[in-house]
Amino acid sequence: MRRTQLDQNPCSIAKALDVVGDPWTMLILRDALLGVTRFEDFTTRLGIPRATLTARLDHLCEREVLEKVPYQDHPPRSEYLLTPKGEALRPVVVLLMRWGDEWLRDDDPPTRLEEVDTGRPVDPVVVDRATGIPLDALEVRAVGPVTTGIAGRPASRSTN
Amino acid sequence: MRRTQLDQNPCSIAKALDVVGDPWTMLILRDALLGVTRFEDFTTRLGIPRATLTARLDHLCEREVLEKVPYQDHPPRSEYLLTPKGEALRPVVVLLMRWGDEWLRDDDPPTRLEEVDTGRPVDPVVVDRATGIPLDALEVRAVGPVTTGIAGRPASRSTN
Repeated sequence: MRRTQLDQNPCSIAKALDVVGDPWTMLILRDALLGVTRFEDFTTRLGIPRATLTARLDHLCEREVLEKVPYQDHPPRSEYLLTPKGEALRPVVVLLMRWGDEWLRDDDPPTRLEEVDTGRPVDPVVVDRATGIPLDALEVRAVGPVTTGIAGRPASRSTN
Repeated sequence: MRRTQLDQNPCSIAKALDVVGDPWTMLILRDALLGVTRFEDFTTRLGIPRATLTARLDHLCEREVLEKVPYQDHPPRSEYLLTPKGEALRPVVVLLMRWGDEWLRDDDPPTRLEEVDTGRPVDPVVVDRATGIPLDALEVRAVGPVTTGIAGRPASRSTN
């Protein structure tokens, strides 16, 4: 699938996948959210080929998820900082981590989230903003042209 | 990057990307969450090559995100139903959609979420379960071996 196809898809999920629908890109984003900003640090942590890292960082800058900012003149050096658009992906990455914690491992999760000031553990959950009801306790359907003709109810495991 | 490398990575995000870190896989998951269950319906909606769809569906069944269930004997036909593990990815997909809605388009989002019983609009937000405080209002850090040596504070746009 070419990225341009995703980009031009009317669905916001497809558009989002055009930006972050690649494992390396998501791992770079994970590290950026952890505070990594420099090319050499991404390389070391991820074990990513340099050419691949360059391409992915360029892609994320082009899509304004990261911003390349000079931090030194002699010799010239830049670092990659999250933009507000990139920072707004934090909840997606956090939820992906929690799903992996819950469904893909038998051991205790290696990473926990805590509030910086208090050290209190943070347990992220998606709720409806107006009511505070967790999304998984609501029966929600998607409505709109992209979903036309598709029943909103999730497929169940029952074979009916 | 080979998928086995992601699978064996200690990080839950990498493990999750081994399962869903591919645009086609995420689009199949999106449609499964909308209620699509049959091979022909996935093909028609996604415009995905049949061999690719087969491979991705097999992958999702192998990882127990989908379950292949017979619904007809003569001729034999099966459909693909979300497991609880697959259903648990709904918040991730919903948040990805909302991020796309907010950051990747100028027009109104084509898809809205509503509660099935009431038709009331649903606006998903990630909060801390214990306090109900939105994640983006908290300063949160990740703690654990995967993040060793990395400051927990998010990179800011300010230089240094």
